[in-house]
Amino acid sequence: MTVFTKEEYLQRLKRTKSRMMEQDLEVIVLADPANMNYLTGYDGWSFYTPQVLLVSVYEDEPQLIVRGMDVNGAGHTVWLSADSCQGYPDSLVQVADKHPMNFVGDFIRKKGWSDKRIGVEKDAYYFNVRCLEELQKTLPHVRFEDCSLLVNWVRSIKSQAEILFMQEAGKIAEKAMQTALDNIAPGVRECDCVAEVYRAQIQGLPEFGGDYPAIVPMMPTGSKTSAPHLTWTDEPYQREQPVNLELSGCRHRYHAPLARTAWVGQNPPQKLQDLAQNTVDGLNLTLGAIKPGVTCEEVELVWRQHIARLGLEKKSRIAYALGLNYPPDWGEHTMSFRPGDTTVLRPNMTFHMILGMWMDDYGFECSESFWITDEGCATFSDFPRKLFMVG
Amino acid sequence: MTVFTKEEYLQRLKRTKSRMMEQDLEVIVLADPANMNYLTGYDGWSFYTPQVLLVSVYEDEPQLIVRGMDVNGAGHTVWLSADSCQGYPDSLVQVADKHPMNFVGDFIRKKGWSDKRIGVEKDAYYFNVRCLEELQKTLPHVRFEDCSLLVNWVRSIKSQAEILFMQEAGKIAEKAMQTALDNIAPGVRECDCVAEVYRAQIQGLPEFGGDYPAIVPMMPTGSKTSAPHLTWTDEPYQREQPVNLELSGCRHRYHAPLARTAWVGQNPPQKLQDLAQNTVDGLNLTLGAIKPGVTCEEVELVWRQHIARLGLEKKSRIAYALGLNYPPDWGEHTMSFRPGDTTVLRPNMTFHMILGMWMDDYGFECSESFWITDEGCATFSDFPRKLFMVG
Repeated sequence: MTVFTKEEYLQRLKRTKSRMMEQDLEVIVLADPANMNYLTGYDGWSFYTPQVLLVSVYEDEPQLIVRGMDVNGAGHTVWLSADSCQGYPDSLVQVADKHPMNFVGDFIRKKGWSDKRIGVEKDAYYFNVRCLEELQKTLPHVRFEDCSLLVNWVRSIKSQAEILFMQEAGKIAEKAMQTALDNIAPGVRECDCVAEVYRAQIQGLPEFGGDYPAIVPMMPTGSKTSAPHLTWTDEPYQREQPVNLELSGCRHRYHAPLARTAWVGQNPPQKLQDLAQNTVDGLNLTLGAIKPGVTCEEVELVWRQHIARLGLEKKSRIAYALGLNYPPDWGEHTMSFRPGDTTVLRPNMTFHMILGMWMDDYGFECSESFWITDEGCATFSDFPRKLFMVG
Repeated sequence: MTVFTKEEYLQRLKRTKSRMMEQDLEVIVLADPANMNYLTGYDGWSFYTPQVLLVSVYEDEPQLIVRGMDVNGAGHTVWLSADSCQGYPDSLVQVADKHPMNFVGDFIRKKGWSDKRIGVEKDAYYFNVRCLEELQKTLPHVRFEDCSLLVNWVRSIKSQAEILFMQEAGKIAEKAMQTALDNIAPGVRECDCVAEVYRAQIQGLPEFGGDYPAIVPMMPTGSKTSAPHLTWTDEPYQREQPVNLELSGCRHRYHAPLARTAWVGQNPPQKLQDLAQNTVDGLNLTLGAIKPGVTCEEVELVWRQHIARLGLEKKSRIAYALGLNYPPDWGEHTMSFRPGDTTVLRPNMTFHMILGMWMDDYGFECSESFWITDEGCATFSDFPRKLFMVG
């Protein structure tokens, strides 16, 4: 049972093949689990062993190759016919002298594709150096091209069905954020609060359940709010401390993250209050500048000029494309709002704008996930933009 | 604040350098987040952008290179001095013409290591093809060796402090499993049950909190129990259906997974009851054959002969080394219990033995995580081995 119609998958495949032809590629070997899911529906936590999807411009159905024990699981989630799903033997898993890519290489040869122009995803998380070396060992005469981000770019404009899942993810994100704010209090262990957040993320709502986000809840406290990617500890929350919250909802692997900052107590330092107000003003201003036809860097400039007037600077990008994904990232690695990115915004592109101001020993973050509409943009969540007082 | 003593990290580093010398390597570039954590304590969800740890046999402290915004976070978790933590500019993140590995290459040159014998982890998840190509572009004259699994092998024998964390993880796994069994009932949505399991995993116990396991709860139902790696849906559990449960506890990134199978109702089919009994008998028999001095394949043979007598066969390995890890896997990729693995078992090696019998349209699984003791082995969890009736 796939989560989209077969027609939608066939449309995606058609757009993929069209990009392949533009890049003069006849076969691509996809190893990014999000790209594999996007084209087939395949959804399982099996990407810790090598697996690929082979797309040929000459064939109607792509070919899925997974570990033998995962063929049954693939059968439950893809639209492909059974003979388009191959399993490699377990004797190839995590050994020194053999590798799943030898099986993939043999398969490519048997299909008669060895003389085709073949692309591999050199920049995908799960296509490591050994994968390519083993593939090359089996197919010594093939010169592999790079097809990194080819399908990611096809993914960049969402269908209505995808936007709907991201709206549902946005509702889950609201619930997760409210749960966090409701549970942070002096004396409560961080892990106990995160446990409630996780529960909210996975429960979802009565109308639809939650999926696991590609990134765990990030909820650093105190001076750790000066950095974005720490997780949690067993320590209890303390009075008069900040907590950064970056949480996503997830629905059928589609994400809508949301970041906010809370203060445990009633008297946040003036410098944090000022930073919060300036950041929220900047977020409102920058979201207001978004519409089809403007470029990523033009939007970023609105923010940059806003904080420059306040004597501030943010060295990192302020937004990135996102949607369907697997750990370790919900970003799509295509567009970023920063100087030099001249991509023109188009309707149904989707982004996470995160204004994380990480100072030396404190920080404030506020974010929105949104899609580009015909006239501007619309957020997936509806949650107040401010510094929250909790506990 | 590191979770182990500085002395323990220095011991690990010493053993790493000793292996480097055996393999004739002077510098290694580690990209596996578990290996980076093992040697420095660094713990953050930042591995979705490239980051490395450089270990030189000539220097006391390794050098950590992370994204600029993650330097503060590193400072909170490592034992290294501040000048051993470098941040690369955000302009290198996810762009076509530059890459964090260019920064790493420049750093290697500045350190005067360009003429050294340098190893890279070609088989690590987060060291993809582009990483090596960009590093090579910056250091065109270096011929990179492969140091895959070098540190993983150092990790294979645990310290007492590590065994303690895995025991704590085993206690959390017991709680997570009991929570799953208590919550599965006809009419309950799968996502609502998984939400309770997640909560239990992250809460941990009153004495110590939980960390996020490297693999999400895997709880397939019905005919999906014929495959190991599917996650959950919004569907309610139904009467007279099997549910496979593979869940881990995690403590400071150390894992102790546990798998069991439940039947929703009181009347499991005879074939499932028989499979359960045979598998549990085999688990008991096989665990009983474990002791220092025997090899991985010798242990596997005990299981193989047991099920052969019953007319069954399992095509996949029955156990693998595990411990400290990050998504997407809690396994260490060193040893497996299967034909051909002649590694000799030694005290304080740690494994997950999972006897997953995935038949055409049903399945049963039962597992234990354990460490090798002086006389045999001991499990990290204490949980009945049987087919559970629930709901």
